[in-house]
Amino acid sequence: MNFFNKTLCLSSVLPLSKRWLSTIAIVILSSVGGNQIAMASTSPNLVETAADVVSMRSAIKQEGQFKRTFIANKASVDKQIAQAITVPMPKDGGGGYTHERHKKNYKLMYDAGMMYQLTQDANYASYVRDMLLTYADLYPTLPLHPKRKMGKQNPGKLFWQSLNEAMWLVYTSQAYDLILSSLNAAEKEKIENGLFRPIVKFLSVDSPETFNKVHNHGTWTTAAVGMTGYVLGELDWVEQALYGLDKSGKGGFLIQLDELFSPQGYYNEGPYYQRFALLPFVTFAKAIQTNQPTRKIFEYRDGIVLKAIDATIQLSYNKLFFPINDAIKSKGIDTIELVNGVAVAYGLTKHAGLLDIAKQQNQILLTGDGLKVAQALDKKLEQPYEFKSVAFGDGNDGKQGALVIMRQNVGGEQAVLFKPAAQGLGHGHFDKLTWQFYDRGEEIVSDYGAARFLNVEAKYGGRYLPENSTWAKQTIAHNTVVVDEKTHFNASVKKGNANHPELLFFEKDENITISSASIDSAYKGVSLKRTLALIKLPMKKSGEEQSFVVDVFEATSKDKHQYDLPVHYKGHLISTSFELDTQLTSLPVLGKENGYQHLWLKAQAQPKAGLSQITWLNDNGRFYTNSSIMDGETSLIFTQIGANDPLFNLRNENAFINRKTKSKNHTFVSVLEPHGEYNPSKEFTVSAVSKIQKLSHHKAENIDVVEIRFEGNISYLLAFNSAENIKSNQSNSFIFNGSTYQFDGRFKLFKIKA
Amino acid sequence: MNFFNKTLCLSSVLPLSKRWLSTIAIVILSSVGGNQIAMASTSPNLVETAADVVSMRSAIKQEGQFKRTFIANKASVDKQIAQAITVPMPKDGGGGYTHERHKKNYKLMYDAGMMYQLTQDANYASYVRDMLLTYADLYPTLPLHPKRKMGKQNPGKLFWQSLNEAMWLVYTSQAYDLILSSLNAAEKEKIENGLFRPIVKFLSVDSPETFNKVHNHGTWTTAAVGMTGYVLGELDWVEQALYGLDKSGKGGFLIQLDELFSPQGYYNEGPYYQRFALLPFVTFAKAIQTNQPTRKIFEYRDGIVLKAIDATIQLSYNKLFFPINDAIKSKGIDTIELVNGVAVAYGLTKHAGLLDIAKQQNQILLTGDGLKVAQALDKKLEQPYEFKSVAFGDGNDGKQGALVIMRQNVGGEQAVLFKPAAQGLGHGHFDKLTWQFYDRGEEIVSDYGAARFLNVEAKYGGRYLPENSTWAKQTIAHNTVVVDEKTHFNASVKKGNANHPELLFFEKDENITISSASIDSAYKGVSLKRTLALIKLPMKKSGEEQSFVVDVFEATSKDKHQYDLPVHYKGHLISTSFELDTQLTSLPVLGKENGYQHLWLKAQAQPKAGLSQITWLNDNGRFYTNSSIMDGETSLIFTQIGANDPLFNLRNENAFINRKTKSKNHTFVSVLEPHGEYNPSKEFTVSAVSKIQKLSHHKAENIDVVEIRFEGNISYLLAFNSAENIKSNQSNSFIFNGSTYQFDGRFKLFKIKA
Repeated sequence: MNFFNKTLCLSSVLPLSKRWLSTIAIVILSSVGGNQIAMASTSPNLVETAADVVSMRSAIKQEGQFKRTFIANKASVDKQIAQAITVPMPKDGGGGYTHERHKKNYKLMYDAGMMYQLTQDANYASYVRDMLLTYADLYPTLPLHPKRKMGKQNPGKLFWQSLNEAMWLVYTSQAYDLILSSLNAAEKEKIENGLFRPIVKFLSVDSPETFNKVHNHGTWTTAAVGMTGYVLGELDWVEQALYGLDKSGKGGFLIQLDELFSPQGYYNEGPYYQRFALLPFVTFAKAIQTNQPTRKIFEYRDGIVLKAIDATIQLSYNKLFFPINDAIKSKGIDTIELVNGVAVAYGLTKHAGLLDIAKQQNQILLTGDGLKVAQALDKKLEQPYEFKSVAFGDGNDGKQGALVIMRQNVGGEQAVLFKPAAQGLGHGHFDKLTWQFYDRGEEIVSDYGAARFLNVEAKYGGRYLPENSTWAKQTIAHNTVVVDEKTHFNASVKKGNANHPELLFFEKDENITISSASIDSAYKGVSLKRTLALIKLPMKKSGEEQSFVVDVFEATSKDKHQYDLPVHYKGHLISTSFELDTQLTSLPVLGKENGYQHLWLKAQAQPKAGLSQITWLNDNGRFYTNSSIMDGETSLIFTQIGANDPLFNLRNENAFINRKTKSKNHTFVSVLEPHGEYNPSKEFTVSAVSKIQKLSHHKAENIDVVEIRFEGNISYLLAFNSAENIKSNQSNSFIFNGSTYQFDGRFKLFKIKA
Repeated sequence: MNFFNKTLCLSSVLPLSKRWLSTIAIVILSSVGGNQIAMASTSPNLVETAADVVSMRSAIKQEGQFKRTFIANKASVDKQIAQAITVPMPKDGGGGYTHERHKKNYKLMYDAGMMYQLTQDANYASYVRDMLLTYADLYPTLPLHPKRKMGKQNPGKLFWQSLNEAMWLVYTSQAYDLILSSLNAAEKEKIENGLFRPIVKFLSVDSPETFNKVHNHGTWTTAAVGMTGYVLGELDWVEQALYGLDKSGKGGFLIQLDELFSPQGYYNEGPYYQRFALLPFVTFAKAIQTNQPTRKIFEYRDGIVLKAIDATIQLSYNKLFFPINDAIKSKGIDTIELVNGVAVAYGLTKHAGLLDIAKQQNQILLTGDGLKVAQALDKKLEQPYEFKSVAFGDGNDGKQGALVIMRQNVGGEQAVLFKPAAQGLGHGHFDKLTWQFYDRGEEIVSDYGAARFLNVEAKYGGRYLPENSTWAKQTIAHNTVVVDEKTHFNASVKKGNANHPELLFFEKDENITISSASIDSAYKGVSLKRTLALIKLPMKKSGEEQSFVVDVFEATSKDKHQYDLPVHYKGHLISTSFELDTQLTSLPVLGKENGYQHLWLKAQAQPKAGLSQITWLNDNGRFYTNSSIMDGETSLIFTQIGANDPLFNLRNENAFINRKTKSKNHTFVSVLEPHGEYNPSKEFTVSAVSKIQKLSHHKAENIDVVEIRFEGNISYLLAFNSAENIKSNQSNSFIFNGSTYQFDGRFKLFKIKA
């Protein structure tokens, strides 16, 4: 998708108006060449404008998705405001009653405020007013939250952490904006002095570290303070929000936009936190655009906010985000943050591909942008959103490694996620050069994600479990090489943040997407280099399609090491081409630390030199075979997660580990091949057996050649040059079975018949 | 659903016509009072009639589901018949190439025959003719199949077992009927003498044991022979098919209808084999109805064929069959056998509820009945199919125990399956009085089903795995009491078939469905009695709904025993109300035999006397808490399947086992309570904790009283009388906490406030 090169369809809006001096709305609408020009000088004018409200009031009188959503939301709000206002004394941590109640309150105030604008029924405004007045009574009396976790996260007052307090204010400042015109001066004074000014002070000058932090907590806080500044007419707060408390530009929203995203809009912590961070970025940007359009915030850094929204979509497969780093795996594109992001992006760009995503999100927002989306969906204007193969350069300069996505369609969407990315701060996992594979909607080679049951009190208070550190973050929990049973960077976040892999190349042609990366700093004295290629062979006459992933992982050192390469597979083990020595009556634990203490050793094998194959069956009904080249000394270890897990916190998932011991250099070469179908419902099984008959790997100079031989003596040779710097017109040649082959650039796939 | 009391809408058809003497179709259609009367004296007239064909030829000219299906099927058939005819020499067993090819051939002949009737394009008929001629060349030369498994199953010639041969003939006899009018006398003679007469002889007089067997193999065989008899005009074969080889009525189709189904249409082997058996029952019945309507086959035994179709639907939850006995768990209502059954039943009854099922099946058949379904769905005539709470009496008299289904809707469909059913022959599991629970579309308390990877060669040739006997059939693999670590009936099928539980009662009122059953023969000297109740409390003002299952399992003996009651739960363990002694670094195996050798012992506990609770989280996002009354001596054992499984054949599922040792009598009392929601996508968790605060159980005389106390000192008392024979107006009373309570009949739920 390339909606950044389009002229942004930004409405022209007058400079920041003094609308808080007035409670009378003056709305002038005129249509000039199809562009609506709205002049609003009163409430609402923070994120939504009076012009938006006019359109929405009209839309709820016409049949369509927007009206249906309005009716449903109104019923929900009506039911809630029929209950007494409940503003409990803060007591519980995340997931607990008072925590959830205060969360519900801000959402309810926002929703009721919007109902007031849409229906002009004063009851809604009164409800919000009364709740705000209750908060204004309570807030000045509050000490720090009793469940605060000192030293770990900044404490809040309404909530255990100030992050939630900022979130509360992002919504509540909007709710206030929505009902502002209904309030008298005394009410405004009480609410502003009793609530908004103290909470802004608490979040800004009283918490300089969080406020100035270039981090998503900082984004929520600056957005909350800046938005409140617009509503209260405190432009100084806005300046602080944009440039940091001292307005030097070393903190604040703009440097967050500069630092936290790569030039392509990738967020350093990964998609799970990217979507979380998206909401304050998008919402505050929208507020800036509404109040100070001359700042051209959506054009800032070549349209970084819109790029970030688009990148968040690209970072998904079958509606779910790629679960790298600390990530709850069921989070996907229907998350409210991205619903909001897509609506705002569509409002600005009118890109029809966004409607495809909006349709899948299946949630209409009662906002001006939500209306635009709803009306476009009513008209069925959506076009397929284009998911791409892309390497997202990491870091603010885009040069600190990359997160690589490879995609192709072979009777269904396939994706390889390759992660030569930077550490991604405290939520990052130690999984340099790891990969994941997806096919027909399912995870095939998987990542554990975070060890956490969000908000489930019985599971460590709903926080990240201890096993998140002892298992999920450790290298062995991922699909990358572990040296001497130690974790990358010895599990030091500081060291991880200070180092990153190098992306050597990312290229593609019609049938192949290929990428290579390396890192020398994950282990002292050991160089790791991995090349992954996602390949689709030309369709056979029979209509049969063949695809596979080639994986060449090279570890080199001057000293001898143990190299482990795990494959965390999803499915049921069907067969192995070698004999298994399975533990029958007692399961030992695989290791002592760095995640190994959580693995049961279920079986092991030492296949003879040559081709070794492991086949499993995924829930999607397909078979997957991992074919590896064995040297007769490498062993295979089959594991299950679950040892040293006294409270059953971990999911009992399976892996096999390719282990080479006492070796200076070792190259793991393997091919993952989807095949066949198991259909017990219709009672047929086809192609349950791999079609690969031989694998070989040769390296001469900088040229790697992987031979994959199929039935009928047909072989494919994947040749690539992964040297650090080559010319774009580099000419390469190699000899294979006595014949000379030549290719230009980085790679080529040859088909040969023996 | 009660479509059996309706007058069946059977077409009047002339007695068996001598249509094989003629190749000219004479079709007279007249409309009398809305009833179509078809007079057909030629091909087709086995299952489909000339009148059906006239309707279908008209329908493929009109827009609708039928036409769309026709176009798709035609494209598929055209593609297949463009290839050369392939009739390979039989060589492979199930799942192998020649096996699958001969299966494809019969389906293709049937489809091409139907295309001939629909399009009148002679190419289709020629293709079928040529394939039949090829088979006619081959068949007389065939020895018994090389992969036959002697002593186990009757061998075939085209296939490894005669069952497949019969299936082949059920389809091929129809294909022949469909193209009969296109053949000359010489062709017919060759096909009939070279193919049909030899195969009929092989399946009937040469295999008297299978032919006369009252078993689904017998049904396929008699259907195949009888249908071929109609097409070839060999009424003697039909007589043999109906009454056994000696026509005594001791074998044959009619005694199969008498013996294999209960009066309510439940098939002794359970739903997985019921749907499998359904096809020959329904298809042969349809052929009898077409050719000899005076037999009134669909009225036979009070409409047993239609009852069997309906029972098959009732035996499903969320589109999948309850997986009791040997069952592949992904089999459900969209299976072709039930698609066919629903179409035939709809053709006869026009019951709109069947259209609801047909819609979910999402497959239109190119048959006369398929057309009726398609046209009704085009008109959106479907009405919700009514799934009921029902006790299916087992055995031909319906008195050999029962299979009990309890259902209710509590924000989603819930179901309890309770199995005081008979053994169900060789595919039966040793699981007397076991139960399963389903909620919001998912299994919560589950049954393993069969240990089998259907047709996956690498998994024991795709047959039932050895672990099907060593694990899946064993009692410990189910949710019922195991005495002294031994399996019911000592795993003797013969003993199992000779004994069955007694259904004591099955009753329901607005909020409760309750059933009780007992068995004294599963273990010598031990009586087992279980009562299960599915309960929905009246909705609270807040709209909150509460439901639970009460389980009272009483084991009594003169001698001391060890009693184990497992709960095979689906989900992730969240919390226990007692401390777990978890195996951290080594997993031992739980036992030595009878299935125990496959269980890893993960943790154990000995909760103190009183309430003990175990909570897990299912993939459906709900929490489930098992609350049990503990006596301080009973222990809890947490297990995972997977020990002694050298080839990774078993799924690694979890259970906990309530174990009471050295006891003559013991009553397990527990309550399963669905609650709350875990929604990591929308980031909320509610009611993750059970609302039950106390459980008690009292028994005086025949009255059991289970007290379930919730917050706020609200208690519910479930009182029931499970004595073997009571009067329908039985008056019961009991004293609880000093107060006297009274109820009539079997049970009552009292609400009290302490």
